[in-house]
Amino acid sequence: MRAKEGMVVPIKPKPDARASGLARLSPRLRIVFGNAARLGPGKIDLLEAIGRTGSISAAGRELGMSYRRAWVLVDAVNKMFTRPLVTATTGGVQGGGAQLTDFGRGVVAAYRRVEARTLDAIREELAPFGADIAGE
Amino acid sequence: MRAKEGMVVPIKPKPDARASGLARLSPRLRIVFGNAARLGPGKIDLLEAIGRTGSISAAGRELGMSYRRAWVLVDAVNKMFTRPLVTATTGGVQGGGAQLTDFGRGVVAAYRRVEARTLDAIREELAPFGADIAGE
Repeated sequence: MRAKEGMVVPIKPKPDARASGLARLSPRLRIVFGNAARLGPGKIDLLEAIGRTGSISAAGRELGMSYRRAWVLVDAVNKMFTRPLVTATTGGVQGGGAQLTDFGRGVVAAYRRVEARTLDAIREELAPFGADIAGE
Repeated sequence: MRAKEGMVVPIKPKPDARASGLARLSPRLRIVFGNAARLGPGKIDLLEAIGRTGSISAAGRELGMSYRRAWVLVDAVNKMFTRPLVTATTGGVQGGGAQLTDFGRGVVAAYRRVEARTLDAIREELAPFGADIAGE
């Protein structure tokens, strides 16, 4: 349809395909340890949630995982290092709580920095192909 | 047992825990596209094998995957960009072959550079925790 005189033609902004294709890329990173243990987004999200909530069960709920699943992940991550990332206190009226240790906070922050640097690397190295990334 | 005089006591080199723990870390990276498509080590290894062998079936065999699995991955990767990474020629005595395009080679090289930069980032950011990485 041709625009008639006086008709308001809505202007749909033409997205910069190069920018938008690149902007939609993100990393999903696992750090593989020598013994095949892996530290990825699931465990990191859980550690952060434990830091926020002070509870393994509350953290698991927040992420839609069972208490058992959350506990297995915490146990696995505590075995990846010689120092605990999460400590649990048992007993008390509330049935105990869990703390993300300073060591754990440090590891989580390091992972997030690696992730951010990987995102930068993706955007830089894939820039020449940005215009050729297929749309949704 | 105490070493007796004149007895040869084998010296077991004490590994530098900080260096060895860090050295055993490696990235496992997927690049997630806006439409949830993922480009990770499986597809990249396959593309490289196609580049070496000139054949989807030979590449799949090399990686221990079925022809159907290899073909599905090639099809998926070709849909992630508006230009093909792999082209296939049908017919002929050999039943056709497959080529990794220059575009495909470029994407593979970019992924490998991102991976190398991620490994650098892991070693740098986790260096403070290297001595606390659990052994095998």
